[in-house]
Amino acid sequence: MNELAFASVSELAARIRSRDLSPVAVVDALLARIERCGVLNAFITVTADAARAQAASAEREIAAGRYRGPLHGIPVSLKDIIGTKGIRTTRGSRIFADHIPTEDATVTARLYHAGAVLLGKNALHEFAFGVTTNNPHYGPTRNPWRLDRIPGGSSGGSGAAVAAGLGPVSIGTDTGGSIRIPAALCGIVGLKPTYGRVSRHGVFPLSWSLDHVGPLTRTVEDAALVLQAIAGPDPRDPSTLGQTVPEFTSRLATPITGLRVGVLTDEYHREVADDVRAPFRAALDVLAERGLDLEDVAFPRANEARTAAATVLFAEAASVHERWLRDRAADYGVDTLALLQQGQFITATQYLRAQRVRTLIVNEVGTLLRRYAALVLPAIPVVAPAIGQPTVTLGGRSGETRGAVTRLVRLINLVGLPAITVPCGFGADGLPVGLQVVGRAMDEPTVLAIAHAYERATPWHTRRPPDPPERI
Amino acid sequence: MNELAFASVSELAARIRSRDLSPVAVVDALLARIERCGVLNAFITVTADAARAQAASAEREIAAGRYRGPLHGIPVSLKDIIGTKGIRTTRGSRIFADHIPTEDATVTARLYHAGAVLLGKNALHEFAFGVTTNNPHYGPTRNPWRLDRIPGGSSGGSGAAVAAGLGPVSIGTDTGGSIRIPAALCGIVGLKPTYGRVSRHGVFPLSWSLDHVGPLTRTVEDAALVLQAIAGPDPRDPSTLGQTVPEFTSRLATPITGLRVGVLTDEYHREVADDVRAPFRAALDVLAERGLDLEDVAFPRANEARTAAATVLFAEAASVHERWLRDRAADYGVDTLALLQQGQFITATQYLRAQRVRTLIVNEVGTLLRRYAALVLPAIPVVAPAIGQPTVTLGGRSGETRGAVTRLVRLINLVGLPAITVPCGFGADGLPVGLQVVGRAMDEPTVLAIAHAYERATPWHTRRPPDPPERI
Repeated sequence: MNELAFASVSELAARIRSRDLSPVAVVDALLARIERCGVLNAFITVTADAARAQAASAEREIAAGRYRGPLHGIPVSLKDIIGTKGIRTTRGSRIFADHIPTEDATVTARLYHAGAVLLGKNALHEFAFGVTTNNPHYGPTRNPWRLDRIPGGSSGGSGAAVAAGLGPVSIGTDTGGSIRIPAALCGIVGLKPTYGRVSRHGVFPLSWSLDHVGPLTRTVEDAALVLQAIAGPDPRDPSTLGQTVPEFTSRLATPITGLRVGVLTDEYHREVADDVRAPFRAALDVLAERGLDLEDVAFPRANEARTAAATVLFAEAASVHERWLRDRAADYGVDTLALLQQGQFITATQYLRAQRVRTLIVNEVGTLLRRYAALVLPAIPVVAPAIGQPTVTLGGRSGETRGAVTRLVRLINLVGLPAITVPCGFGADGLPVGLQVVGRAMDEPTVLAIAHAYERATPWHTRRPPDPPERI
Repeated sequence: MNELAFASVSELAARIRSRDLSPVAVVDALLARIERCGVLNAFITVTADAARAQAASAEREIAAGRYRGPLHGIPVSLKDIIGTKGIRTTRGSRIFADHIPTEDATVTARLYHAGAVLLGKNALHEFAFGVTTNNPHYGPTRNPWRLDRIPGGSSGGSGAAVAAGLGPVSIGTDTGGSIRIPAALCGIVGLKPTYGRVSRHGVFPLSWSLDHVGPLTRTVEDAALVLQAIAGPDPRDPSTLGQTVPEFTSRLATPITGLRVGVLTDEYHREVADDVRAPFRAALDVLAERGLDLEDVAFPRANEARTAAATVLFAEAASVHERWLRDRAADYGVDTLALLQQGQFITATQYLRAQRVRTLIVNEVGTLLRRYAALVLPAIPVVAPAIGQPTVTLGGRSGETRGAVTRLVRLINLVGLPAITVPCGFGADGLPVGLQVVGRAMDEPTVLAIAHAYERATPWHTRRPPDPPERI
């Protein structure tokens, strides 16, 4: 069973295409494993019957010679903030506990169109506004590597599911790190594409000028395969218009030798726990061996960028939730309510100042990236904190868990650039560490090529967490 | 002297081109008249020496056979919020009383490039944030039709100057009506082009998502001639990118017979003083005689649009002024300071709600304008109030002068559509009334064609205010 559970999309696809493997058998194996791994609490809804029917349909199509491509018959799951027609989409909230969308999100429709099979809807931090996925309405999601640890968030169910072999792919969303955080803390690959690369239509917003949709997978190649299926213009999300979609998968093996890459080593980015710094430094050695030309660089105005990103996020989130904050305040969890209420106190002047600072920083990072093909940095400055742990010590100071965990990912949302995290070893307590690669706008191919070269040179993506006990 | 003073651009241009008239003679006549009409207080700065030098240079070029086009040798003035290299640009404020820009605004540079001669910088409401042009730092500007009345604002000096024959053209700015208000109250033509048609680079912002630059002239043809010179993409104002600039002047005489045009007659737009309604109704009869197919229509969500426009304007203005509100509060006039301080209390939630309502209304007006080639309505619901008059009675209720005067123009800024006002008669006390024509996005040609047809059918644009006394 574990052989299928931990197979990659590309491995499954090769066998499904050649009819050596039945999509129904894959779905059955994964549904059994999802049930078996229930303590992880990675799913809010499992769509078992629909999944079996879709798999059977895929099998018939393929048998009839109508193979759609590498996602045909491949099981995927979706963070439960992504709209699914006829399937409840809770947004991790009590307010939408019984919400059944009447249409699919664009990303859902594109996955169906590619032949993917929906396993279910993954757990998340309430309304995607937090990093623990300790959800007051649906219970805490657990990190497969250590069950007392958070999986990260807000796409925590996606991270836990893919890391634990409950499917090769989940689609998450990333507003201040919410794809990369669970991917890094659970030891898998998480890709936040460029702002505007993937449609957000039908995905409940957290902060529309920072929201991104992207895949969590176990390999870089799988991330490229999924991105290929979901990327592209959508008139219903104007931010996506005007792009042309490159070949992501065929360019994975593009040589990276001689690429000039900046290593973020300014004061802000140096604040990293020792057990994360060591694997990160080792990863830099690997990248240097692969021929990258690494130079220390500074992210412009990092502290200002952090404040601007938080201001924009809090203000837009408070705006999205305005109606429910007025009518349904008692139905929020305490932490999400507190953050949203903070957002209501931001003035227009503060918001507009943040957006102006943002424009400045976008231009300055753009200038930096004329010189560098990409930037590298750790994904998260600490390994996964414990469930319920309110603070983390970093740089000798104790600070809120949310602040520490988002420190190195949030700035990238502000500038909208593509960013991936790939497993790069383990820190304290055998918990995974992620290497983050950030690229130029719309240049996912270079980001993927660097991550792919690193992955091929290292064993980390082959490591598996232990199977969890049936109950705890 | 008055023959030259009230000649249109097209009349002057024909004589200048044929060397029947010297640009220097024109400038000398106008400079003398500006001095003679000093009680109007239409200029903050008169650039007499530079104007004479530019006129002489134009004359030499034209004599040498290097005629640049219809603005060559034509005197223009600029609202004193438009940057002029080496010439002080006060923005109507004490804070920038001695501010001398180091570069020209794009619109300034384009006028120079077309061969125009700069007469000087026109008075305005402090920082363009008001409708009276009763400026606490530079004194009140007076309406040429009655010296105890406001010229409107914020481009009040532009309106008074063009109406009084102190030049055929002034460039103003319009954030909530600031071109159309003084044009209508002073009995001339004012054109607010489509948002993004004319670069704002080098023009001090009031509210960047509502700000427009455009001409005040005495004829529709002159407005088209000036727009032709200043329109078009400018990389330094991203809102202008992606447009193609049509031929405005050659399309002025496009037949308008059979065009379906909406008359705004909803409850919001019906609130108009009797002495304005009568000339407006008569204007509709003229338009119907010219072959327009007029139908009563409603502007979607007019009251919401008004609130949204005010919220966006106040919030963005407070953001622009943040630094000076902190450091230089005592240097603002009391009314402008009060409005800016109000703006500082707008929350991000309120601002973002306003921008969301705005998107909705833009779409709804877009739908309306699929059916109608243009909309017509009065420009201002009252004739020019007295200088210092705090309230106006409208619809039986007394309200702030600013609210009444902006009532019918402000909504158009929210949706960014092109709008012109042309003289359409006189109301109480012999004060001018304006007819407003609003068109589809980027369709200034239709707006101009309707206004031009109306102007040719009526005598109003030929009426002149009396010469003012030398002192009062």
